[in-house]
Amino acid sequence: MSSTFGTLFKVTTFGESHGKAVGAIVDGCPSRLPLTEADIQPQLDRRRPGQSSLTTPRDEADAVTILSGTENGVTLGTPIGLAVKNRDQRPGDYGEMAVLPRPSHADYSYLMKYGIKASSGGGRSSARETIGRVAAGAIAEKWLKTHFSDLSITAYVSSVSEIAAEVSAEGLSRALVDATPVRCPDADAARKMIAAIEQARDEKDSLGGTVTCICRGIPSGLGEPVFDKLEAKLAQAMLSLPAVKGFEIGSGFAGTRMRGSQHNDAFIQKNGRLGTKTNYSGGIQGGISNGEPIVFRIAVKPVATIGLPQETAGLDGRPAVLEAKGRHDPCVLPRVVPIVESMAALVLADAVLRQAYRC
Amino acid sequence: MSSTFGTLFKVTTFGESHGKAVGAIVDGCPSRLPLTEADIQPQLDRRRPGQSSLTTPRDEADAVTILSGTENGVTLGTPIGLAVKNRDQRPGDYGEMAVLPRPSHADYSYLMKYGIKASSGGGRSSARETIGRVAAGAIAEKWLKTHFSDLSITAYVSSVSEIAAEVSAEGLSRALVDATPVRCPDADAARKMIAAIEQARDEKDSLGGTVTCICRGIPSGLGEPVFDKLEAKLAQAMLSLPAVKGFEIGSGFAGTRMRGSQHNDAFIQKNGRLGTKTNYSGGIQGGISNGEPIVFRIAVKPVATIGLPQETAGLDGRPAVLEAKGRHDPCVLPRVVPIVESMAALVLADAVLRQAYRC
Amino acid sequence: MSSTFGTLFKVTTFGESHGKAVGAIVDGCPSRLPLTEADIQPQLDRRRPGQSSLTTPRDEADAVTILSGTENGVTLGTPIGLAVKNRDQRPGDYGEMAVLPRPSHADYSYLMKYGIKASSGGGRSSARETIGRVAAGAIAEKWLKTHFSDLSITAYVSSVSEIAAEVSAEGLSRALVDATPVRCPDADAARKMIAAIEQARDEKDSLGGTVTCICRGIPSGLGEPVFDKLEAKLAQAMLSLPAVKGFEIGSGFAGTRMRGSQHNDAFIQKNGRLGTKTNYSGGIQGGISNGEPIVFRIAVKPVATIGLPQETAGLDGRPAVLEAKGRHDPCVLPRVVPIVESMAALVLADAVLRQAYRC
Amino acid sequence: MSSTFGTLFKVTTFGESHGKAVGAIVDGCPSRLPLTEADIQPQLDRRRPGQSSLTTPRDEADAVTILSGTENGVTLGTPIGLAVKNRDQRPGDYGEMAVLPRPSHADYSYLMKYGIKASSGGGRSSARETIGRVAAGAIAEKWLKTHFSDLSITAYVSSVSEIAAEVSAEGLSRALVDATPVRCPDADAARKMIAAIEQARDEKDSLGGTVTCICRGIPSGLGEPVFDKLEAKLAQAMLSLPAVKGFEIGSGFAGTRMRGSQHNDAFIQKNGRLGTKTNYSGGIQGGISNGEPIVFRIAVKPVATIGLPQETAGLDGRPAVLEAKGRHDPCVLPRVVPIVESMAALVLADAVLRQAYRC
Repeated sequence: MSSTFGTLFKVTTFGESHGKAVGAIVDGCPSRLPLTEADIQPQLDRRRPGQSSLTTPRDEADAVTILSGTENGVTLGTPIGLAVKNRDQRPGDYGEMAVLPRPSHADYSYLMKYGIKASSGGGRSSARETIGRVAAGAIAEKWLKTHFSDLSITAYVSSVSEIAAEVSAEGLSRALVDATPVRCPDADAARKMIAAIEQARDEKDSLGGTVTCICRGIPSGLGEPVFDKLEAKLAQAMLSLPAVKGFEIGSGFAGTRMRGSQHNDAFIQKNGRLGTKTNYSGGIQGGISNGEPIVFRIAVKPVATIGLPQETAGLDGRPAVLEAKGRHDPCVLPRVVPIVESMAALVLADAVLRQAYRC
Repeated sequence: MSSTFGTLFKVTTFGESHGKAVGAIVDGCPSRLPLTEADIQPQLDRRRPGQSSLTTPRDEADAVTILSGTENGVTLGTPIGLAVKNRDQRPGDYGEMAVLPRPSHADYSYLMKYGIKASSGGGRSSARETIGRVAAGAIAEKWLKTHFSDLSITAYVSSVSEIAAEVSAEGLSRALVDATPVRCPDADAARKMIAAIEQARDEKDSLGGTVTCICRGIPSGLGEPVFDKLEAKLAQAMLSLPAVKGFEIGSGFAGTRMRGSQHNDAFIQKNGRLGTKTNYSGGIQGGISNGEPIVFRIAVKPVATIGLPQETAGLDGRPAVLEAKGRHDPCVLPRVVPIVESMAALVLADAVLRQAYRC
Repeated sequence: MSSTFGTLFKVTTFGESHGKAVGAIVDGCPSRLPLTEADIQPQLDRRRPGQSSLTTPRDEADAVTILSGTENGVTLGTPIGLAVKNRDQRPGDYGEMAVLPRPSHADYSYLMKYGIKASSGGGRSSARETIGRVAAGAIAEKWLKTHFSDLSITAYVSSVSEIAAEVSAEGLSRALVDATPVRCPDADAARKMIAAIEQARDEKDSLGGTVTCICRGIPSGLGEPVFDKLEAKLAQAMLSLPAVKGFEIGSGFAGTRMRGSQHNDAFIQKNGRLGTKTNYSGGIQGGISNGEPIVFRIAVKPVATIGLPQETAGLDGRPAVLEAKGRHDPCVLPRVVPIVESMAALVLADAVLRQAYRC
Repeated sequence: MSSTFGTLFKVTTFGESHGKAVGAIVDGCPSRLPLTEADIQPQLDRRRPGQSSLTTPRDEADAVTILSGTENGVTLGTPIGLAVKNRDQRPGDYGEMAVLPRPSHADYSYLMKYGIKASSGGGRSSARETIGRVAAGAIAEKWLKTHFSDLSITAYVSSVSEIAAEVSAEGLSRALVDATPVRCPDADAARKMIAAIEQARDEKDSLGGTVTCICRGIPSGLGEPVFDKLEAKLAQAMLSLPAVKGFEIGSGFAGTRMRGSQHNDAFIQKNGRLGTKTNYSGGIQGGISNGEPIVFRIAVKPVATIGLPQETAGLDGRPAVLEAKGRHDPCVLPRVVPIVESMAALVLADAVLRQAYRC
């Protein structure tokens, strides 16, 4: 009952990991945007598992097909149907999980909600659900860039466990982010992160971390006051992602330790427009973009599925030991990067459409 | 264009600080709930300024009137109109702000969005807008408690600037929270917080902090997968509040430094139901409540309006100095407490109604 | 749970006939529109009872107050709160109805839905609920006219019982419509209608009829394909009005007896744009306006509340006789006219905003 | 931007006649409903062309595939992805239409809205778009019947051109409706209708008519007051169908010629519940079902695509003659029957879910 996101640029997703396909309908994408599968596939490829030794070895090609909404490579303004077939299904691997609800997974809460459980557990809580989001986000981003040529949305891994990166917003690009398999543009930190992830993998354990996202070239005036503040929609979008436990914008939690006199972003003249000297606000004031870069950060918990045996209990309450045999990522952070960018693009495209009639 | 929140239990707010009234329409509150103004007023009183020397001296009675939706003290199932008159208007105090956009306030971004600016700045970004939310939240909470007798929603100030409280969830209550003017149930920390706020006030500066909220007695199965995950709606609700810069649930950002084997919440038998040994998940897994307490924390920036002179620029880009003469809080944290509780109640009431047809 | 209408230009109404006030919140009205109560009052005055001997003698001043959303007579882009106080309450008149559900009224179905009944019966099904719609529609219409100077929305009574009017769209205006108390611009038919209504009034009975609405100067391209076709939103808007039992656009039911070769609206050149020779489509094709006048007609049943004694049954099923003592209209058609115009304006304003980003 | 219908039982459709597939996502269908393609296919088969000599000879198998949302033949509560491949594409047939906007078709208005036109004209205005609706409606109907065993939704052709049927609600069933190829249960009228349609076909012309729908076994209390009245959602649903020009419920337009004393539905005791002696209200009072059969009727215009040459104009305004060469129905009425039933089922299923929490 909640598979739709957006007011004007809307995406509705469908699909479990073990059905025939996953995908989405993008409704509200303006017409006359050049669009083919080639515009969507790159972000899907960045999202999919099996890209490096750091991620799960499942190699799912995840080739997207546009089912409707375009003709001759141009959007018609009508709903864009998107589908990706599920290929690599090994239900056998989930045998034990069918009996034991996995700790910190959605198996139990789905059962409480629906009175039934997919054999793979909380099917829609699977990372595979994000395929539809990423496909839709790629469309949103392409549309945004045709209207705002300076616009860029770049996310990167800013920490893994205790290892924090130092990254300058200057010169940041997806190419730079992708230069390391851990998607951290601080080469030194990246090395340490990789080592930590490999160690966790070898120990059948998992690691969490943070992803930072910087959106530049965003026009001022986007976002709505009150309940649909731009930061509120970003927060919803990010907390709607699997494994995300926190969101902060601009100064975030660290800003709570500053004084108003330090924290206030004084206005200054900037290339012919009014800008701010600092950007503790993270590009948004009162829910509305002010033209500065939008900067936010999310917390990603360590993956719940681990190879280590776990003492837990069955649905009947009896103690039991769970030992996951399925394939799993020791650290999903690198794969979260394009997903975060996609959700940010969806939020921004919707905000642009909603702002079309200013006055 | 965004003044409505909720799918079934819906609130729509209206009002600026300098119009005739502020208020809300609550649509979707079930019928036959006993309800009078006396059920709503207490949370409004906790929200309003002038409660202690720590908050702004504006004493606004903020008496709510129910305009519709009840008869003989019982809800009819029809929209509940709520209004609070604006009394204490001193537009003169905002004179300078009409010319200079206030740093880290919404004056500038509202102007960019709407091409016009209320004399008081970003009128809807005013804390006064939250009156409608608090009134609606009080109704939501009353309705929830009639259906789930063990349900409680309690927020408190968990830190002010560098001063962090240590608070046990055991025995926590609103009475305990209200025992200190700073609404922190750790008496020792409260003393330090008060001193820090008084100092900031005397120095014409402001302080930020965090508010923690604990929701107990929440049934499992609430929340929707994908975009309307329970934590996603909570995050949206909280980031939609003025001055909030961050949200974390359960282990939050600290959890990113843990390993999966530590972070996973093992299942155990608990009073005849399946519970979890730890609660790093914060009561929600895969977007759906699991029956454990829902625990989240928000970051509140130091108030933007300060008495200290600030070097900034006017709309024409020319450097200028702003010295706020209006009344202002040196620290809004204590007043944020009931607002957080209200938004949490709105999210939960909506989730309960959406879960009414399970299967 | 349904008191909100519109996607971008949204209205949420509240209020029963016997509460403190009725009204609405208009959210999404663009900023910088000159607006005061004087822009809204005229349509409210056309709607209110007591305008002539044909309508109920209840003289309710129905003076509207703008509570928020404007400053110095101009909209701010924020929600516009609107309230009209209830003054003329005589609950005593409804005594018998509290026991007997009125035939063809909403008393019984409300009771089945809500498990409770307002003393006045189905409070929200009262014609008084339409006050919020009319106030909101007046704002929508004013905004539309500032953007499309040729736009006009004019409704009139096209039949009362068996008496049908012949009205030419040429020269039609509200002044012409208001020239007779029955709001029918065919003077001859109007005379007969008035006589019929007076006779029905004297016989303590009631009459139905039809209202036709013509919207001119509507740009092409408005409306959405599929579920939110322009005619579908108009149909929803009209059937959402009390006592309305039918809707037809363009040729409507009569068109079902034509052949395609007669019914098709051939294209012709018209003042520099492509128009159609005939307008059986009623200005909309495939859900989207084509630039021709939008013409639709609604069926209004005879008022359910009549003075004649009615044999019916009580909630316990026992036979009973109901004799309404309250004040009532023998024919609501004249008062429906401004309500229809208001709903049409709301539909059109929303469609214009949704079309803002064409491609 | 309008491809989603419903508040809790939601359907989002996609697809043009000439893309790769058409289909829908059904979101909000409760879990644990037995469901396979076999539950959906029958209504699709009733909808598809080529069923008799009365309909277009395009034989499209229209086999539906469930892509997600079920496992082992039972719904999971997650979105149900539905797809039907497009097979019989003959774009060549539409050559002339690419240049000339077809009279009373959506080609021109789509072009005005989107600035682009699919080669097949207004792609989403194609009858093929209704496939997704019918598939979704079949699911809604199955779910309704599992909860309300007496519930039935039966539509039939009540008139073709001037030929009107006389049909008793007693004993009405889909089998009876399907007994004639024109789907009219009045055998005598059916014969005349068939003859008239065959004549129109031979003359390369088309006919319109009306469809009546009777919904029985509907519980009282469904529907929302104000904007989402049950009849308002039905009206929107029906007017959102291609070629529909009118909607009436209960007495409809004929009722406008009755007096209140005749039209009022007196209450009587009926099998242990309160019913009404007559049913001029059509089963709904004040927007809320009263337990009587819901009866409504729609007007379907004669199909716009005809074989006869038509004098019209091109986009440049120059006179031209259009002669459709594509395959087309001389009368779509029989195929509209299952589509009307499907939309009614979607409206009712949504209303049941919204009523889940009564008080």
